[in-house]
Amino acid sequence: MPDVAIFGAGRIGKIHAGNLVRQPGVKLKYVVDPDAAAAKALAAQHGAQVGTVEGVFADPSVKAVVIASSTDTHADLIERASHAKKAIFCEKPVDLDYARAQRCAKTVRDAGVPCLIGFQRRYDPTFAAAKSRIEAGEIGEPEMLVVTSRDPGAPPVEYLKRSGGIFKDMLIHDFDVFRWILDDDAATVYATGSVLTDPAVGSVGDVDCTAVTIRTKKGRLAVINTTRRAAYGYDQRFEVIGAKGMLQAGNHKPTEVVSSTAQSVSADKPEHFFLERYQRAYANEMAHFFESLAKGTPIKTGIDDGVKALQLAEAATTSWREKRIVEL
Amino acid sequence: MPDVAIFGAGRIGKIHAGNLVRQPGVKLKYVVDPDAAAAKALAAQHGAQVGTVEGVFADPSVKAVVIASSTDTHADLIERASHAKKAIFCEKPVDLDYARAQRCAKTVRDAGVPCLIGFQRRYDPTFAAAKSRIEAGEIGEPEMLVVTSRDPGAPPVEYLKRSGGIFKDMLIHDFDVFRWILDDDAATVYATGSVLTDPAVGSVGDVDCTAVTIRTKKGRLAVINTTRRAAYGYDQRFEVIGAKGMLQAGNHKPTEVVSSTAQSVSADKPEHFFLERYQRAYANEMAHFFESLAKGTPIKTGIDDGVKALQLAEAATTSWREKRIVEL
Amino acid sequence: MPDVAIFGAGRIGKIHAGNLVRQPGVKLKYVVDPDAAAAKALAAQHGAQVGTVEGVFADPSVKAVVIASSTDTHADLIERASHAKKAIFCEKPVDLDYARAQRCAKTVRDAGVPCLIGFQRRYDPTFAAAKSRIEAGEIGEPEMLVVTSRDPGAPPVEYLKRSGGIFKDMLIHDFDVFRWILDDDAATVYATGSVLTDPAVGSVGDVDCTAVTIRTKKGRLAVINTTRRAAYGYDQRFEVIGAKGMLQAGNHKPTEVVSSTAQSVSADKPEHFFLERYQRAYANEMAHFFESLAKGTPIKTGIDDGVKALQLAEAATTSWREKRIVEL
Amino acid sequence: MPDVAIFGAGRIGKIHAGNLVRQPGVKLKYVVDPDAAAAKALAAQHGAQVGTVEGVFADPSVKAVVIASSTDTHADLIERASHAKKAIFCEKPVDLDYARAQRCAKTVRDAGVPCLIGFQRRYDPTFAAAKSRIEAGEIGEPEMLVVTSRDPGAPPVEYLKRSGGIFKDMLIHDFDVFRWILDDDAATVYATGSVLTDPAVGSVGDVDCTAVTIRTKKGRLAVINTTRRAAYGYDQRFEVIGAKGMLQAGNHKPTEVVSSTAQSVSADKPEHFFLERYQRAYANEMAHFFESLAKGTPIKTGIDDGVKALQLAEAATTSWREKRIVEL
Repeated sequence: MPDVAIFGAGRIGKIHAGNLVRQPGVKLKYVVDPDAAAAKALAAQHGAQVGTVEGVFADPSVKAVVIASSTDTHADLIERASHAKKAIFCEKPVDLDYARAQRCAKTVRDAGVPCLIGFQRRYDPTFAAAKSRIEAGEIGEPEMLVVTSRDPGAPPVEYLKRSGGIFKDMLIHDFDVFRWILDDDAATVYATGSVLTDPAVGSVGDVDCTAVTIRTKKGRLAVINTTRRAAYGYDQRFEVIGAKGMLQAGNHKPTEVVSSTAQSVSADKPEHFFLERYQRAYANEMAHFFESLAKGTPIKTGIDDGVKALQLAEAATTSWREKRIVEL
Repeated sequence: MPDVAIFGAGRIGKIHAGNLVRQPGVKLKYVVDPDAAAAKALAAQHGAQVGTVEGVFADPSVKAVVIASSTDTHADLIERASHAKKAIFCEKPVDLDYARAQRCAKTVRDAGVPCLIGFQRRYDPTFAAAKSRIEAGEIGEPEMLVVTSRDPGAPPVEYLKRSGGIFKDMLIHDFDVFRWILDDDAATVYATGSVLTDPAVGSVGDVDCTAVTIRTKKGRLAVINTTRRAAYGYDQRFEVIGAKGMLQAGNHKPTEVVSSTAQSVSADKPEHFFLERYQRAYANEMAHFFESLAKGTPIKTGIDDGVKALQLAEAATTSWREKRIVEL
Repeated sequence: MPDVAIFGAGRIGKIHAGNLVRQPGVKLKYVVDPDAAAAKALAAQHGAQVGTVEGVFADPSVKAVVIASSTDTHADLIERASHAKKAIFCEKPVDLDYARAQRCAKTVRDAGVPCLIGFQRRYDPTFAAAKSRIEAGEIGEPEMLVVTSRDPGAPPVEYLKRSGGIFKDMLIHDFDVFRWILDDDAATVYATGSVLTDPAVGSVGDVDCTAVTIRTKKGRLAVINTTRRAAYGYDQRFEVIGAKGMLQAGNHKPTEVVSSTAQSVSADKPEHFFLERYQRAYANEMAHFFESLAKGTPIKTGIDDGVKALQLAEAATTSWREKRIVEL
Repeated sequence: MPDVAIFGAGRIGKIHAGNLVRQPGVKLKYVVDPDAAAAKALAAQHGAQVGTVEGVFADPSVKAVVIASSTDTHADLIERASHAKKAIFCEKPVDLDYARAQRCAKTVRDAGVPCLIGFQRRYDPTFAAAKSRIEAGEIGEPEMLVVTSRDPGAPPVEYLKRSGGIFKDMLIHDFDVFRWILDDDAATVYATGSVLTDPAVGSVGDVDCTAVTIRTKKGRLAVINTTRRAAYGYDQRFEVIGAKGMLQAGNHKPTEVVSSTAQSVSADKPEHFFLERYQRAYANEMAHFFESLAKGTPIKTGIDDGVKALQLAEAATTSWREKRIVEL
């Protein structure tokens, strides 16, 4: 029964801790967070103890760590875990700096430790089913991908300042979806963006609406459209067109109630935000991590996926800033 | 080029006249209506002349008549047309009295004239496609039928008084759909009803909501639910379950616009009422009539269909009034 | 922290045990099952011990029991639990015999113990949302209810023999939905049925397709259509029509993938059967039970609901067998 | 009663002629086509005569012309009609050459004749309803537009050679939709494309899949994705996101039948191609033209719209060929 430590007792840390303790034979031993009260509360909830970074890495009973702390700690914790030979489950991104992320990936590879980067969308039932059906040949060879990715509302400006910008903070998931679904490498990236929903976003040098086009080495086309503010909620869809047809992966709704009145026929809005939409994805992701550890099978979203999505985010940022097509 | 006369220049008469003049090689010669102004206006619109009942039946150039006049004139006009050897296109019902309708049918059969009774739902693209797919074996042998038939609002009480009651006035279409889709005869009929939407309906001895169950000779089950007032419009659906699956025939919408707002995700309501929903059905029905005449092929909805639907309406009325199961 | 015992370690027992151990502060102490191996396995999975009926009722630390054993044990266990002053969570039905169920209900009432009867559909997110929205007045006063309830396949004939017949075994849930959604009492019940999917069903004196019409004391209408075999899976829908509109509660799908090919545009079938469709309902139901115990608040689906649904099932059985309308 | 001449008796000419003769008070006098047999057949069908270009422009009774002949004749016929002071209904495009189209537009303006360019999508019930609802403020100020435009199959290579390329031949409609829906001018255009469905398309220097991004002067974003071959038929959708929500304009289906089987739940594919999907749009477009003539009201899709869509098509072609962002 492996003992596990979690770094980060915030919103996403709580999600991961809750999923972690449901894995058969897995024990949450330590919760580590600079916010002592948060660490204590989460530890208490799951019968764990409050730990320290040093303590975790020094404890040989800890076989795996879940990194759900702030982005600027990811690379360092990944490297320390690698050196300590502990399996790693780390929230995206690896780092906001591409070179730093590359070095980090090398450390992981050299250490030979299992490492999962939290691109949870690949574990979503709808998205995963679409991928399986593409692989089963249902639509033939994929030719074009259209990704729609819209948040219900922008985060606070304070968050945006440290976020690395919309391409690294928000679209990094979409870049991973692109790589996963088309299973091809980007040849060129074109990105543009605007501040349309809130001038405050522009005040910190960021944009809130974007359109990205990726041409792959095989000539396939991918287009991504995003906004930070969709009045109707969290809009997470993609569609893939192939020689034999199209697969559309749609939104999830809280219920299947339809109301017909004198005004209209209406259904539920999509599930509100990522914690709701990807609730099952987070659970599946954690289960996959511990199954892979137990069976020694490969992890689906490894550190290289983290690095390559970041590379696309950097290329998109450059394309937007410099108003040019970026070749990779 | 057959000349045609139309009886009735009201709402449904105008629809039929408009479809009639679009049939290749067909000429509308006479419009007959006790309302002289209405007859004149419709005749003028289509380059026809105002006629009389006697004139129509005396004119050998008239090969077919369209009966779209008030219900109490149907049986008489059908019989006169039969004697005059003119092809007949008659709006439902044949008559409100079952015995009278039976006599009328005998006259038509004896005369050997083609006769179409206006059960236009059989010519609706959605309903007709469902029927064809059942016949093609898509769901195997049909076992159960659920018919939903709801009007957007009740007609005036004055109309209801002369309507023959909801089972003969409104459900007669649903009884025809039942016969057509299950292709089987009723063994028992159970009907119940309530006055739920407007007490005025009750004041004339009628009901506005009904539930009907028909058991067929082969043991199949059909249930029909109706209301005179659906706030969201005209609701016309059925579903058929067979050994291999289910076919659902749904409502038509004016447009395919979907709106997603902070409140809901909403689509158009169904097309408002029968003139909108069955616009194409009426056109197909008229085309079928003249094609059948031209080619000498059978007419899909003949006078016997009119009589048998009426028989079911009578049985349902008896079941409701006498609170008992009626055997046929 | 209340200790709990579960009777029954079969399919539904496992579901309830899994939900039970997730309730905060609740401990599964005993698993009781005549099948020793099944009891042992389930106990081991949740860190509980194998118990006996006598032991459970004699142990004062046991505050609540979950009855998921075979139907013929329900009434007896409910009564013993009542005498032992333990809170009761019992799968439907209370009993197959109406008089027996009534006596059982009296015992529960006299003992004053909390008792939940497992009509899990009331805890389904979609069904519960529809109910809340009716209560909030979205469609005005309800007038008509149409319930569609279809299983993917009939149980083995051996099961059917002891099931009490389709009305008590399968439609009992639909009768509860009727009572819950229309919030009104039945005045008359008409039921008919046929053997259409498998002659074996008829060989044990049962039917596999039914149509039921209920007229309420307020004159509202409810129609229920069921089949034991829907080729496309578990079909669980209802729609309620009121003065201001309609609410439809639809099926749940495993994923939101839509495939468009040269053949058709297709979506997932409904979730396969009750364990899938009502997975969340079972979890919500168990959470509700322990919340009610903790807070002393009323339980939504009590023993009287169990008795009244059974009364409707008996009336329907009589109506079908005797081919008559049953008054209540 | 204005007499009208039509140039072109091919596929689209027949559609327009059929709609034209249904306009109240409008008479089709001449059909002109180099293919004498085609001209004769179409003239005979509608009681018109075969005419010549010279004859049409010399006949003062001809008040309007419908230009449905081959693309290379459009500009010349528009100019001759302008000089002859006849109202013009012309299929898109004005011309394949931007400068030529501009000169042509000037001629029309100088002559002051009414001129409709056949961007029929603006007259489609679904697209037009979306536009009206945007104008009514339902989603607030539009921010982003996503256009999906896919044909069921590529035209013959011989056609492609003379088509002006995919951006002028196919996307010109989408560029018009962009201008109409966002009601804003393009600041930059980025286009890329690939040959993915048929190498023959590449052999004539064209592409069959494209992705286009337009940034407007107000900073709004529009993305268009197209393919010449969608296995599931003609896919014509757009969605507009604004501050208060999203409007999606979807495909039309031939029927509303849904089939549920052991395999899937499936609905009709979209209507097959433009003649089916835009049947009502073509009828509405023709009605609008003659209504505008009769009332002297403005025409919705004028020659300037034709010129501006062509400008965008040229910019997209340049962007694709020269692999650069084009500023306008």
